[in-house]
Amino acid sequence: MADIERILAGDLRAMARAATAIENRTAPAEALLKELFPHTGKATIVGITGPPGAGKSTLVDQLTRTLRGQAKSIGIIAVDPSSPFTGGAILGDRIRMQSHHADAGVFIRSMATRGRMGGLAAGTFEMAMLMDAAGRDVILVETVGVGQDEIEIARLADVTAVVLVPGMGDDIQAIKAGLMEIADVFVINKADQAGADRLELELKAMLQISPQHGGLDVPIVKTVASEGQGSCEALDAIFAIKAAKSSDGVGIWKLRLREMIRERLLERLPLHELDEAAVGVAARRQNPYAVVEEWLSRLKLTS
Amino acid sequence: MADIERILAGDLRAMARAATAIENRTAPAEALLKELFPHTGKATIVGITGPPGAGKSTLVDQLTRTLRGQAKSIGIIAVDPSSPFTGGAILGDRIRMQSHHADAGVFIRSMATRGRMGGLAAGTFEMAMLMDAAGRDVILVETVGVGQDEIEIARLADVTAVVLVPGMGDDIQAIKAGLMEIADVFVINKADQAGADRLELELKAMLQISPQHGGLDVPIVKTVASEGQGSCEALDAIFAIKAAKSSDGVGIWKLRLREMIRERLLERLPLHELDEAAVGVAARRQNPYAVVEEWLSRLKLTS
Repeated sequence: MADIERILAGDLRAMARAATAIENRTAPAEALLKELFPHTGKATIVGITGPPGAGKSTLVDQLTRTLRGQAKSIGIIAVDPSSPFTGGAILGDRIRMQSHHADAGVFIRSMATRGRMGGLAAGTFEMAMLMDAAGRDVILVETVGVGQDEIEIARLADVTAVVLVPGMGDDIQAIKAGLMEIADVFVINKADQAGADRLELELKAMLQISPQHGGLDVPIVKTVASEGQGSCEALDAIFAIKAAKSSDGVGIWKLRLREMIRERLLERLPLHELDEAAVGVAARRQNPYAVVEEWLSRLKLTS
Repeated sequence: MADIERILAGDLRAMARAATAIENRTAPAEALLKELFPHTGKATIVGITGPPGAGKSTLVDQLTRTLRGQAKSIGIIAVDPSSPFTGGAILGDRIRMQSHHADAGVFIRSMATRGRMGGLAAGTFEMAMLMDAAGRDVILVETVGVGQDEIEIARLADVTAVVLVPGMGDDIQAIKAGLMEIADVFVINKADQAGADRLELELKAMLQISPQHGGLDVPIVKTVASEGQGSCEALDAIFAIKAAKSSDGVGIWKLRLREMIRERLLERLPLHELDEAAVGVAARRQNPYAVVEEWLSRLKLTS
């Protein structure tokens, strides 16, 4: 049986091999994804994002337990802001996730930051495609939601839950504002701590002035993930949003096609010429804007 | 006098107008940057990055005070992870920075996350070019160092200082690892708090196993920025690194030329065709990998 068939049948070892190929961005991975693509589009992809310390991993753990209780198969992608060389090994998250390691119904992979722009969102999307094609019902994508990458990842999810906790400082205010525009639902985790009600009021006030959400109802769910409280309510809110959105996926694919072309374009161009120009630019003998204009004027799309 | 000459003479109002044009990515901004380019390459660009709550803004404030005492002119770019619609207004940072607002020797701008990939790093680099051409001696670029964008920004700086504080949790461990590869110098801020010595030992241990740094000496400076302690030592370390690196800038420009082309390429292509393909892809009638392959095969660089 070929790898593609094994994956479509949900074979864990074939999935693991494919996931590694996707992580390493090999050419066979691209060929595989091309074959898997027609079998995608069935899973619900849920983004779980929020600042460091919000308890996202614990929440993902609890959501997974609840979904497994409903006999749903799960994929988890932990997007890891750490560098490739350390991998995800030092993340406390991983240790907590071990509680599912013996359950074949939970397939977990982490995606580490790659050295090139946009690579993280692209890789995460491809990993979700793999899990989707392999028949996973729900794919949970966990990110530390503070950068542009995480916002791009959220755009590719069906539903994005932003996890916050009471009592964070000034910097978090800014992050909260940045996450406001991608939130389909807010989860106030550690809701048994002081300040949970105040945070809820703040969020409601921010939602009212937000151009994305003004007048719209964005649910706010309170959880104490470490004790399993609120995870059913959070899932109910997530699936209600998924049902109400009923996206046709065209918007996502407009974005993805652009990204796929952007990612691959440079590989097709004679970059050694560009590197020679960089020498002249660094010495201020050549002007980078002139170099780029000239290149772009030479680029033609034939029919 | 034309705007370009005013900027080269350091005129604050002309700089402010140009900065706004760069933020808004107008066509005149690109023409202006093209003219400014030959006058760049003199400033020292210092990236100041680290997780939320590390006290980066307070440190930037103190470094600014110290540099002003040495009669150096300063540019500050605060890279803001919040969304464009909230601007930087809610950041506590901005309030602290007001202490320099009456000093013409300190030019401050913030860069908000834009809606497209790579835009933040590009915009930050252009803003630094403006300040450089206008004769600023040192440009401090402050980012919340947790995403790919921030790592890209760090690559464009001459020297990157990573700011950490004692006593952060698991998530911070991961961020620390991600920042490890971009750090030219570590600043342990709030070094009067418990755990500062332990953090220093941890960093030294991480540096030893890091392939970037293995065996190399990365200075670790302790500061209490809120009381002005350690800012001279931090600057000494930064300038010593700048002197030792003596980069010719070719590496940076290889990267920048690629990014400039990547950013501009899609604008030159007939995107309505791609949007039509997205409809077929979303309905699983067309395969995105086939669509992209076909486009790329039609793209030619004429000589």
